[in-house]
Amino acid sequence: MPIADTPKPPYYAVIFTSLRTKGDNDYSSTSDRMVELASKQTGFLGIESAREQLGITVSYWADLQSIKDWKADVEHHEAQIRGRREWYSEYRVRVSKVEREYGV
Amino acid sequence: MPIADTPKPPYYAVIFTSLRTKGDNDYSSTSDRMVELASKQTGFLGIESAREQLGITVSYWADLQSIKDWKADVEHHEAQIRGRREWYSEYRVRVSKVEREYGV
Repeated sequence: MPIADTPKPPYYAVIFTSLRTKGDNDYSSTSDRMVELASKQTGFLGIESAREQLGITVSYWADLQSIKDWKADVEHHEAQIRGRREWYSEYRVRVSKVEREYGV
Repeated sequence: MPIADTPKPPYYAVIFTSLRTKGDNDYSSTSDRMVELASKQTGFLGIESAREQLGITVSYWADLQSIKDWKADVEHHEAQIRGRREWYSEYRVRVSKVEREYGV
């Protein structure tokens, strides 16, 4: 997974931080499917993900409407329900507006 | 590392994404020291970090001034220079304003 090649700000970042429960329970396959699905959404700009104990996934979006539409996607909505019930002991979702960006 | 117990939005998130070069070259000890130092800064609200191939560190701050002050901290500034020269083959820093937050 490379660093997301996002455009010049402003755009939006959804910071999803989680702690996993034990066992896979279809988590890995669903996670791959959600990345695939998200990538096809209108307004999707990129995604970055890493997990040690803590997992952090940051997805980037053109606007708040795109985030709202992705959150309401039927297959994604089912995954969110399984996530709360089975995959995550704790999680937090932060919706933020990227104002500045720099790097190499 | 637990999920950061951030207050009710709005507040700021600095999303630091990086790819490492080979070898440690004091990276681990400096990284620990930077977390320790950042935690003492005015306006610091929390930090979350994970690395697989890609490394993601999200630090949370009360306002833009706190981020600016931390960026200008002398010891942090030296670490940034070493980071660009020695530790990271690629990185991106995104400064964002957290507008909404939800989770369990």
